[in-house]
Amino acid sequence: MPIDIERIRNDIDWIARATARADDGGADRPTFSANWRTARDYVAQQAQAAGCNVRIDAAGNLHARPAKIQWDQPIWLSGSHVDSVPGGGDFDGITGVVVPLEVLRAAHEANETLSLELIIFAEEEGTTFGLGMLGSRAWVGEVNRERLATLRNAEGQSYLEAGAAHDVNPDLLQAHHIRPKEYLGFIEAHVQQGPSMWKNEQPIAVVEAIAGRHQYRVTIRGLANHAGSTAMCDRQDALVGAATLIMQIEGLANGSSGRTVATVGQIICKPNAVNVIPDEVVFTIDFRSDSNTVLDEGEQQLRHLIEQTCTRRGLSATIQRTEAAPVVRMDPRVCDALHSAAVRAGARNVPVTISGALHDAAILAPHLPTAMLFIASKDGISHNPNEFSRVEDIALAARVLHELVSIRGTK
Amino acid sequence: MPIDIERIRNDIDWIARATARADDGGADRPTFSANWRTARDYVAQQAQAAGCNVRIDAAGNLHARPAKIQWDQPIWLSGSHVDSVPGGGDFDGITGVVVPLEVLRAAHEANETLSLELIIFAEEEGTTFGLGMLGSRAWVGEVNRERLATLRNAEGQSYLEAGAAHDVNPDLLQAHHIRPKEYLGFIEAHVQQGPSMWKNEQPIAVVEAIAGRHQYRVTIRGLANHAGSTAMCDRQDALVGAATLIMQIEGLANGSSGRTVATVGQIICKPNAVNVIPDEVVFTIDFRSDSNTVLDEGEQQLRHLIEQTCTRRGLSATIQRTEAAPVVRMDPRVCDALHSAAVRAGARNVPVTISGALHDAAILAPHLPTAMLFIASKDGISHNPNEFSRVEDIALAARVLHELVSIRGTK
Repeated sequence: MPIDIERIRNDIDWIARATARADDGGADRPTFSANWRTARDYVAQQAQAAGCNVRIDAAGNLHARPAKIQWDQPIWLSGSHVDSVPGGGDFDGITGVVVPLEVLRAAHEANETLSLELIIFAEEEGTTFGLGMLGSRAWVGEVNRERLATLRNAEGQSYLEAGAAHDVNPDLLQAHHIRPKEYLGFIEAHVQQGPSMWKNEQPIAVVEAIAGRHQYRVTIRGLANHAGSTAMCDRQDALVGAATLIMQIEGLANGSSGRTVATVGQIICKPNAVNVIPDEVVFTIDFRSDSNTVLDEGEQQLRHLIEQTCTRRGLSATIQRTEAAPVVRMDPRVCDALHSAAVRAGARNVPVTISGALHDAAILAPHLPTAMLFIASKDGISHNPNEFSRVEDIALAARVLHELVSIRGTK
Repeated sequence: MPIDIERIRNDIDWIARATARADDGGADRPTFSANWRTARDYVAQQAQAAGCNVRIDAAGNLHARPAKIQWDQPIWLSGSHVDSVPGGGDFDGITGVVVPLEVLRAAHEANETLSLELIIFAEEEGTTFGLGMLGSRAWVGEVNRERLATLRNAEGQSYLEAGAAHDVNPDLLQAHHIRPKEYLGFIEAHVQQGPSMWKNEQPIAVVEAIAGRHQYRVTIRGLANHAGSTAMCDRQDALVGAATLIMQIEGLANGSSGRTVATVGQIICKPNAVNVIPDEVVFTIDFRSDSNTVLDEGEQQLRHLIEQTCTRRGLSATIQRTEAAPVVRMDPRVCDALHSAAVRAGARNVPVTISGALHDAAILAPHLPTAMLFIASKDGISHNPNEFSRVEDIALAARVLHELVSIRGTK
């Protein structure tokens, strides 16, 4: 059963061209947008052409199974997402969708029925509705319809409202929840989004754990005042307070383990006028580590730094924890099976690694035996139009997935 | 000729109520907006009722003169602006308009013809078209029609386009330029916008100089990347770079004279997503001092800090100086005359001070003998809905202006 590298290249190119934004060519596929739908429809059509039935569950996730296999028969599940951050790259998420797609196509061509279901999770990035992995969370029952009704996009529409046109159906959410007995396990292929594999010439890697992630929204309040006539000592400048914290947050991560990172990605300043001292600054913190202890102690340190800085500068602060995802271990048996499949597929130098990024696999892991397959990212660049992975490495991942599901599926 | 304190109170309350924004009651009068026009029309109507002719010059500035005085007869000029920063206060600018308005009304009531023309300068704050004191600059010929055509508001309209409905006329700009021989001098009353006078119980003060102001727009460029999988040592985070600079800029001002201030008021971060390392941050610097040497040396230090920070962090930067207004000395004879008038008006404890904020008076000073009269600001709060000055102090300023123009006008 030959994996067709050109077919994979064509998938990636087609989706990239169809969903690029005009200014810089960055991927622009916010969940439930026209571009996002274009990408989902493309995959659905390709899967149908490869002999699959396609259904959308009530949370908006797409499932594609060979028509010869009943929906309740236990088989492997593999997939990822097609939504992107604003101005993202062509590989994040898409890679993990085209890997099982190509495996299904190749099997169909060879008249082989593989025990493999493809899935596209809706809203993985979290940049559209403010919470990551929303499609998988809704599928496993981790967020309910009430929560989905409160999460809104920039246009003010809730997940349920914006998703209605894409088969999201709050009345069927519970009925469509994952049924673990219908699956043997879950494999998510994904680009690494970090530089180590590319640097060390490792085309693929088996992921044994996903770093935990805490996210916070911090609001600093000061006093708006005239930029010219307020002496430095009379100021309560919310932006200088926020800047102090941004530096301290960098220091906090630098002072932790090498697998700990902290990012202030979003900042909004008010009134944001050149000649007015800012009176309110809202910023986000994304804090990740492979150690739950580092995450929990880090939160105490963060709260202390914020309190200390505000007290010293006559500011006040509100700290809202918007997410607390602990470290997630992958299933050791599935990791071993993936490793063996990689050897059978001819891969050499397949390391075991950690994912700094969160993925839908972290949400699935408590419900299904789960592991991830990483594909090298050029220079680690991700969430950026210059994101790149070799299609040869993606094809290797497809061969590994095929090896895995062929063995298990024929048991 | 009695100055009527209740009439002044009514002016301020009327304009405040008519132009407040709904959420926090902050003044919302961007230049050429409906609210701004409401305020200008109110003053025009009051001046006409007090026997004045009103005209709008081609730059959009309103002039009101007692009908008995020809437009080319040399008399005193006094006024300020009615535009506000977003969410500003009820006194900034308005105070300096109602002071000559009340003097004209009181004189009209007493059948007295005073040598006084009222002026409302269009666009003083700079928050609507990105450059402060645009109305006075256009009137004195400091900016021409080509420049006015390039300065745009948030809706993308140029000063000329947005002003057309308010009698701005590019064809008459030059014909309407200030003719210094038509004026004896210029007095601008204004709230101090700093805390010192209120703290020291000084209701009014004579301003002998206006601090110089340099403004910059700095763009820091890094590399967008995944917030989870990019190790701290592999980052080129534009926001951490900007935060470092915001702190260094505060330090630079703190290390200069007590009359030097620096403010980062505006910051825009891209892509501004919780899980993406920022790749571009644009921020403004407002740098003021009563010493041109401090301003010029400060600029060198700023450029050095920016270069140093960017080099260390793998970032690049563009620094654009958007304004370089030197320190402006007021006319010593007019200052003395104002001081004498203040004594005659019964004021005690009238200090001589410096204005940290820029004003239209700085633009007029090279063309007319100019001075300013400050009115105490409660706790120095300004550019803020809580801005407050005592109407009694404003009435005192009106009595001082009346004393000044009565003497000179009868020469």
